[in-house]
Amino acid sequence: MSEEIVLYHGNGGEGTKELINEILKNFDNDILRKLNDSAILNLKDKLAFTTDSYVISPQFFNGGDIGKLSVYGTVNDLAVCGAKPLFLSLSFIIEEGFLFSDFKKILQSIKEASDECDIKIVTGDTKVVEKGKGDKIFINTSGIGIIENENRDLSKRKIEKGDLVIINGGIGEHGISIMLERLGIKVDEKIKSDLAPLDKLILPLLDKFKGVKFLRDPTRGGVATVLNEIANKFNYEIEIWEEELPIKNWVKEASNILGIDPLYAANEGKVIIIASKNEGEDILKFIKQNRLAVDSKIIGELKNDGNKVYLKTEIGTRRIVDTLKRDILPRIC
Amino acid sequence: MSEEIVLYHGNGGEGTKELINEILKNFDNDILRKLNDSAILNLKDKLAFTTDSYVISPQFFNGGDIGKLSVYGTVNDLAVCGAKPLFLSLSFIIEEGFLFSDFKKILQSIKEASDECDIKIVTGDTKVVEKGKGDKIFINTSGIGIIENENRDLSKRKIEKGDLVIINGGIGEHGISIMLERLGIKVDEKIKSDLAPLDKLILPLLDKFKGVKFLRDPTRGGVATVLNEIANKFNYEIEIWEEELPIKNWVKEASNILGIDPLYAANEGKVIIIASKNEGEDILKFIKQNRLAVDSKIIGELKNDGNKVYLKTEIGTRRIVDTLKRDILPRIC
Repeated sequence: MSEEIVLYHGNGGEGTKELINEILKNFDNDILRKLNDSAILNLKDKLAFTTDSYVISPQFFNGGDIGKLSVYGTVNDLAVCGAKPLFLSLSFIIEEGFLFSDFKKILQSIKEASDECDIKIVTGDTKVVEKGKGDKIFINTSGIGIIENENRDLSKRKIEKGDLVIINGGIGEHGISIMLERLGIKVDEKIKSDLAPLDKLILPLLDKFKGVKFLRDPTRGGVATVLNEIANKFNYEIEIWEEELPIKNWVKEASNILGIDPLYAANEGKVIIIASKNEGEDILKFIKQNRLAVDSKIIGELKNDGNKVYLKTEIGTRRIVDTLKRDILPRIC
Repeated sequence: MSEEIVLYHGNGGEGTKELINEILKNFDNDILRKLNDSAILNLKDKLAFTTDSYVISPQFFNGGDIGKLSVYGTVNDLAVCGAKPLFLSLSFIIEEGFLFSDFKKILQSIKEASDECDIKIVTGDTKVVEKGKGDKIFINTSGIGIIENENRDLSKRKIEKGDLVIINGGIGEHGISIMLERLGIKVDEKIKSDLAPLDKLILPLLDKFKGVKFLRDPTRGGVATVLNEIANKFNYEIEIWEEELPIKNWVKEASNILGIDPLYAANEGKVIIIASKNEGEDILKFIKQNRLAVDSKIIGELKNDGNKVYLKTEIGTRRIVDTLKRDILPRIC
C-alpha cells in the first residue's frame, strides 16, 4: 500500500480497487458488499440508491458537458440495476472564479437531461472553495430509482456457461475523445463522447427478455474493467472476439496515437449485457431498434469456470485482458 | 448578478441565496421548492432524502474531522425533517498526494460515526484529481431516512404567533473554533467544534410533544441565517433576546478578536426548535436530560406578521439581525 493517494488510484483499475477495499474494510454490510452501481433498499417498494461525483476536465466537451454527464451517469447506474430513475440530488463544489455564465450553461444542461429522463431533482447543496482548491466545478449526484416489478429484479437471474456478452455499440468513444480534447488536439464533429441516457433502452429490454441476466455500464476503466469484474463476480472465464468488437475508425486511429487500448477507455452511453445463448440474437434484434443501440454486437461468451478475460484476436491467438495496472489519463468521468 | 462565482457565494447568506435561486430557476418542482434540508419522497413509506458536500479545511480539527462531519451533518439534516436515518451514500474527491494514513483516519471516523447513528453506508464513489485541483479531500454524503409515524411528520404542524424559539446549547462553537484553527491560532482543549449527531435528541422529542412545530440545524450562516429563513418562510417577525443567548465565554472572546458575530458562525451540533408557548417549558425540561442539550435555552419568540429578525439587547434596544451581506471566513462546513 502506497503512502500517498496518487492519480493511479483514480483510474478504475487496481489502484481504485485498492482504494475501494480500504473503504470496504470499514463499512462492510450486505448491501454495500454487492458493489452494484446502486444500492438496493428493501423498503416496501424496492428502491435503488446510487451516488457519483463528476470531476471531468474539460467541463464542456464534444458530445456533452459535466452537467449532462452528472445526470445521465447516475440515471445509467440506476437503469443497469433495473430501476426506473425517480429522484436526484445535486451537489456542487465550485472553485472561486468560475464564470456564472458557464454555471448557467451547466444548469441548463442538467435541466434538459433531467427532463429527458423524467427524474426529479429534489434536494441539493452548493459549496464554493478558494481559487486553486478545486477545478472549476465538481458535481455530485445521488439517485433513487424504483424497481417496479419482478421482471426488473436482476438479482433473481442466474448466469450460466454459454451466456453471451452484448454491447450496444462503439467502444471507447467517451474516453478517447476526452483525452484528445485534454491534449488540446482539435477534433472534428464526428469525434465525440457517446454520452447518453440508457434507461429507455434498458428497462423495456428487462420487461421483454428473461434472458437478460446482468447489466453494467462500462464507464471508468472501460469494457475490459467491467468484464473482469463480471468474470470475478460470477467465476466464469470470459472470451471476447476481436473481430466482433464495434470500434469506430477514429477511435482505432486515436488509440494508436495515444497508445491507449480502447477496451480500457471510458464509455458513457454503453451497457454490457450478459444474455442467455437462446435469447441472444432476439435481444440483439430488439435493441437495434433503439437509436442508442444500432451498432450493437454480440462480442463474446462466458466459457469455463475461471475469473480471467481473454481476447481472441483476428489471427486466432488468445491473450489475457487484465485489469488496469498502470495509469491512463485521468479525469474523464 | 456578478460574473464570477466568488467565495461570497458560499457563505450561506445573500450570495448563496443568489446561487441557489439560479439553480431553482432551472429545477422548480414541488419537492425541491420546499427547500427543506431533506427531500420528502412520498412512496409507500414516507422517506427523506438529503445531500451535502463537505469541503472543510482543516480536515482534522478540535472536536472532530471531515469524516465525522460528513456523517453527522447528513444525519442531522434527516433528523430535523423527522426522519430516522437509514442509508448513506459516500463519495470522495481526493487530491493526488493525500496521505493514505489520513484517509484511513477519516474512514475510521466515518465508521464510528455511522455505527453510532445506526446508518448504513450502502453505495459510494471515489475520484482522484491532480495535485492543485482539490484540497486534500472533499466528501459528499447523501442520506435516506424514514418518517416512521404521523407524529414525526412536521409538515402538518402549524406555526403561530407566540411560538417560542429554543436552541439546545452554545452558539457559534463550530464556526469560531474552525476559524481560530484556520488562522493558525493554538487553541486549548475546551475550544472545539460542537459537532454531534442530533437524531437521538430530536426523534424522541417529536414523539413526545405535539408542540414542536419546526426544526432546523443552524450550520453554515449560523443562527441568524436560519432564523431569517424561518421568518421568511412563515411570515413572522422573530425577536431573540440577547441576555438569553447561550454563548460560551471563549466564543465571545474569540468573536471579538475575529470581528465575527457568533450569531453568524456555523454550528454542527445545534438545532433551532420552534415550539408552542404552552409546551415550551416542558420541552426545555425534557431536552435538558440529553447531554447534547444541557445548556438549552428559550432564546426568543415569534411576534407579529413580518419577515425580519430582531435582537433585543441587554440594554433594551432592538436591532435587525439581517442575512449575511458580506463575506466571513469560508470552508467551515
